[in-house]
Amino acid sequence: MSLSPPFWRQSPPSLSPDLLKQGRQRQACLTKPAGSLGRLEQLAITLSAQQQRPRPAVDRVRIVVFAADHGVCAEGVSAFPQEVTGQMIANFVNGGAAISVLARHLGAELEVVNLGTAHPLPARDGVVMAEIAPGTANLATAPAMSTEQLQAALHAGQAAVQRAAEAGAELFIGGEMGIGNTTASAAVACALLDLAPESLAGPGTGLDADGIRRKVAVLHRALQRHRDTVAEADQPLTVLASLGGFEVAALAGAFLAAAQARIPVLVDGFIASVAALAATRLQPGLADWLHFAHQSAEPGHARVLAALDADPLLRLDMRLGEGSGAATAVPLLRQACALHNQMASFQDAGISKGQ
Amino acid sequence: MSLSPPFWRQSPPSLSPDLLKQGRQRQACLTKPAGSLGRLEQLAITLSAQQQRPRPAVDRVRIVVFAADHGVCAEGVSAFPQEVTGQMIANFVNGGAAISVLARHLGAELEVVNLGTAHPLPARDGVVMAEIAPGTANLATAPAMSTEQLQAALHAGQAAVQRAAEAGAELFIGGEMGIGNTTASAAVACALLDLAPESLAGPGTGLDADGIRRKVAVLHRALQRHRDTVAEADQPLTVLASLGGFEVAALAGAFLAAAQARIPVLVDGFIASVAALAATRLQPGLADWLHFAHQSAEPGHARVLAALDADPLLRLDMRLGEGSGAATAVPLLRQACALHNQMASFQDAGISKGQ
Repeated sequence: MSLSPPFWRQSPPSLSPDLLKQGRQRQACLTKPAGSLGRLEQLAITLSAQQQRPRPAVDRVRIVVFAADHGVCAEGVSAFPQEVTGQMIANFVNGGAAISVLARHLGAELEVVNLGTAHPLPARDGVVMAEIAPGTANLATAPAMSTEQLQAALHAGQAAVQRAAEAGAELFIGGEMGIGNTTASAAVACALLDLAPESLAGPGTGLDADGIRRKVAVLHRALQRHRDTVAEADQPLTVLASLGGFEVAALAGAFLAAAQARIPVLVDGFIASVAALAATRLQPGLADWLHFAHQSAEPGHARVLAALDADPLLRLDMRLGEGSGAATAVPLLRQACALHNQMASFQDAGISKGQ
Repeated sequence: MSLSPPFWRQSPPSLSPDLLKQGRQRQACLTKPAGSLGRLEQLAITLSAQQQRPRPAVDRVRIVVFAADHGVCAEGVSAFPQEVTGQMIANFVNGGAAISVLARHLGAELEVVNLGTAHPLPARDGVVMAEIAPGTANLATAPAMSTEQLQAALHAGQAAVQRAAEAGAELFIGGEMGIGNTTASAAVACALLDLAPESLAGPGTGLDADGIRRKVAVLHRALQRHRDTVAEADQPLTVLASLGGFEVAALAGAFLAAAQARIPVLVDGFIASVAALAATRLQPGLADWLHFAHQSAEPGHARVLAALDADPLLRLDMRLGEGSGAATAVPLLRQACALHNQMASFQDAGISKGQ
């Protein structure tokens, strides 16, 4: 029996003030007006402190897509049938999905983790089998998962980060696939932020106005059903178990494990941000390790980002998930590093400084 | 004697409706909810029509930095001394400037065109010598340039595009370097948009509040001095000659020539956008060929973008010029093309479609 607390009870390390200061000093001597590279300057400085080296790099990027099904699909909350979760797992490893194309384009490693689909899938190359159950229970009528299932999902996230760390990942991206998972994520965000479903339910993969009204009604029932449970102590974990999904919990576990392994995280869209919200409620120090890639077109994302005090890098009206928004932002981090590491200083280039 | 009008009097070609339609059809059959790649979808569709091929690509990117000095520096409108223009030309070709690092990172070709510095520079490898004069005249007290000088600058832009086209460029980026050029650009924008200097003058490379007040006063004098001239017919050219800079006019010429050569343009920040504004006033059809990379921290840029009806891809508070903001956005175009060209269709991947 281990005496140490589970990994989600351990604080991530804090960033080195010395490296942050060194980074600011370096930016100040590069051949450009002070501050003129805007957010790219702070990105490089933060990456330097996260990676504990004066010249940061994000050449080796690990993208892990966590996939799982959701019992709440019985309530008719998605524009796509539930079998698409499994079909998309095949599409990820066959190279035809958006995240497959982006990973290839970036030279990033893509891993798919199957946490449990409604119709069990055969094992296949490129898919890590980590099935917890054939999807969650219907969160509108029951807890989405048991405590043991929650812990299994958190550990699946940690295991993915351990594989990433062994491969030398310099940046971790967590994606997700799961028909119905905007409903589960909206439920988690409503409970964590004490907001009404109307402010967090959106079209997801493409619900029309009637569909969104149905989703809101389901969320109201779910929040009512779990009202007493989620008001308990230890709220982030209880909320994840009652209202979340296996992939949402795995993302939360992965983000915490990445920070503990000193691997910076680039957070994707609505669902990944909800996982980040739950994880930072568990460990506020996680915030130092998160970069936010984009603001999704899913309307609830803006609320979740605001709660995280996050100003994402991109606003391109993407709303696909899979980690696709985060992948799209990777070149910004790479360019920030290249500028920080390779630009000449005023002194070296013999250039007159300004006022 | 040529009978054809000068190139800036010729309309750019319009985009093929067939290719635009084909592009939309392709996006609709890819394995993602309709519209879920957001702006990346329209980017790929537009690039396809601009490049007249169903599978667009921006592998070969040409970045041309036009450099020139400004007589208006005599009025104390910049935080940096004028000699920096020449020093930065050396930094560009030596590989230490931001745009040098970004071009190398992107595998893009970088060309520097010297249109005339206050202290003439020796010829050097990597710099195209196209000197018009040792900088413009002081626009606060005289026309910045003669009609002949304006035409030389427009032709220098065209010549750079011809070299880019010969090299097979699939995307053209025009950058600029010229101490004092936010003042000249603000003057051009004020005249074209009939706006007061207060709404367009900003810190440039780093003026403090006193410096900005001085810049505003200089702009008032300049607009008063040229009031009658810039109210004439043929306004965009007269405005460029009276209030512009060699590099601003060269950018306008380059953008028009790129569109005529069917090379899409990725427009950088405040100064490049002012050049795009003047050029679209000459040829409204140019708008079909322009992508806007970013919104600069220079406060006047938002006004100029609004006048161009442009919604830029990035908002990272950059304000360096050199083409750096445009270079930063190149990966977005490349990713849009990769997704458009390489994603699987619902049919090929055997995936159930949504509602």
